[in-house]
Amino acid sequence: MIKIAIIGYGNLGRGVERALTLNKDMELVGVFTRRAPETVSTYGAKAYHMDDLLNKKGEIDVCILCGGSATDLPVQTPEITKFFNTIDSFDTHAKIPEHFEHVQQAAKEHQTVSIISTGWDPGLFSLNRLYAQSILPSGKTYTFWGKGVSQGHSDALRRIEGVADATQYTIPNEQVIQKLKAGELLELSTRDKHFRECFVVLEENANAEAVEKEIISMPNYFAEYDTEVHFISQEELNKEHKAMPHGGTVLHIGNTHDQTKQVIEYNLTLDSNPEFTASVLVAYARACARLAKEEQFGAYTVLDIAPKYLSSSDDETLRKELL
Amino acid sequence: MIKIAIIGYGNLGRGVERALTLNKDMELVGVFTRRAPETVSTYGAKAYHMDDLLNKKGEIDVCILCGGSATDLPVQTPEITKFFNTIDSFDTHAKIPEHFEHVQQAAKEHQTVSIISTGWDPGLFSLNRLYAQSILPSGKTYTFWGKGVSQGHSDALRRIEGVADATQYTIPNEQVIQKLKAGELLELSTRDKHFRECFVVLEENANAEAVEKEIISMPNYFAEYDTEVHFISQEELNKEHKAMPHGGTVLHIGNTHDQTKQVIEYNLTLDSNPEFTASVLVAYARACARLAKEEQFGAYTVLDIAPKYLSSSDDETLRKELL
Repeated sequence: MIKIAIIGYGNLGRGVERALTLNKDMELVGVFTRRAPETVSTYGAKAYHMDDLLNKKGEIDVCILCGGSATDLPVQTPEITKFFNTIDSFDTHAKIPEHFEHVQQAAKEHQTVSIISTGWDPGLFSLNRLYAQSILPSGKTYTFWGKGVSQGHSDALRRIEGVADATQYTIPNEQVIQKLKAGELLELSTRDKHFRECFVVLEENANAEAVEKEIISMPNYFAEYDTEVHFISQEELNKEHKAMPHGGTVLHIGNTHDQTKQVIEYNLTLDSNPEFTASVLVAYARACARLAKEEQFGAYTVLDIAPKYLSSSDDETLRKELL
Repeated sequence: MIKIAIIGYGNLGRGVERALTLNKDMELVGVFTRRAPETVSTYGAKAYHMDDLLNKKGEIDVCILCGGSATDLPVQTPEITKFFNTIDSFDTHAKIPEHFEHVQQAAKEHQTVSIISTGWDPGLFSLNRLYAQSILPSGKTYTFWGKGVSQGHSDALRRIEGVADATQYTIPNEQVIQKLKAGELLELSTRDKHFRECFVVLEENANAEAVEKEIISMPNYFAEYDTEVHFISQEELNKEHKAMPHGGTVLHIGNTHDQTKQVIEYNLTLDSNPEFTASVLVAYARACARLAKEEQFGAYTVLDIAPKYLSSSDDETLRKELL
């Protein structure tokens, strides 16, 4: 049995707790949190304070880090990797090389294994970009996200004065995707690729017109997109827009010669973004435990890991059943 | 530069010759054939007789074996692996474990690297089954093929008395795929998943009714499917049905809990099946050369190979650009 600790218990941590119940070769040691453990309500896991983590050193094979990329993981992953094998889902694209170096240093020095930036993007989408571009080097890759809830954009809406609550959906332009698949060569702007749809609950006495104007002109978040704003009640938002669906498409189109177009397409349609991301983390936790057992210490990303390391089946069974 | 030899020069060998021109880190030493080399018309590659292969030992990094799975590869791959690093696309599913053992023995004994059963199924589809099942272990995987030309089924048609020429298309049941993606749990028979469409040129004086009856009742090939037969002229067949498109879908549907369905979908839409398969072989030839350089001798399948080995970019660039 691979013994897992969950570090940080928000939506992702809860997803990991659920995913572990579907993996018979793993068991959960507990959830480690900065909150008072008795205030944390889990699906059944024991909760401990973060300060107790080092006391459990002998009992944990892999720590799955479920904190945020902004402030938690840049500190936590290198630090915890000094004592444990770790997995994270660090997703600040521009800072991944730097994060990798920090974790690599800790892992090499302390003889542990860490797999960073797992999940679906970065993660499974990165894998698909790599496979597709290696196989059709003359092609072009397009990534579309959604339909799904963007946590960052929903947060941006909630920070606007007069907004009580909000959910933002990122919606891919299906028409553009169909044209690309049909072989049209398109130069795509940001506005061409995705729409944004906002469901907003106003505070009492808020000015709807002013709020809408502020939303659609917000730089980096909405100004570059065609954005639709719907004002609804808190009841409706709670009922219809509190789930966390997401997904997306990696589309790679290349020619092997003038007349032969080849299309590789990878789609995810997810009812729960955090539960799916958690499922990816758990599969890579298995890979992490194996690499540690083989004493292949260091930092890794999904690009470095042979697919078979994710499976609980042995090589012979995989060859027989999957090839 | 990675130096490549093509062994066997049919549609797949021709595809490899084309794919190599798109990969700037590779060069083609030549095509090796059992035919008289002067009778082989390539896109420009030098043609040699198979008997000359051993004389080129020092000049070749990887042999890409482009023979058939029925009789060529079971003999050629273990034999050539005694002298060279090799790649094949052996696709007789039931015999892959046995083939792997034979190649493994040759590679271990003679310190070479061989990657067997590459291509898209087995190959990329196998990878996608493995990733999906490892991430969503509670899910169910469906593979659909087509729309595309099945060489085996076209050959079966051509063996019927009274048939001058023929092309057979395998067509996936899109309605069933849509239902599965929408979350319906279906028990699917062979007949439910695919249709078969035959374009047949009759010999003079052949009995169309008898030919059609023989086709739709042919066990293993057509009897288990809804099959449509169209009789057309040789001119029309030559004009409309001599391309080799193919493709397919690996669909994996799993729940992370009762309410959350997660769908992973991988699609290929290929104008040329042999050219795409060739492109996969070429990418894995790069992996083969690297594994040989690292002296990691032995037999491999796509399941054993870390994705980064397929790319001509270094690890740092991949982390920066693809994650």
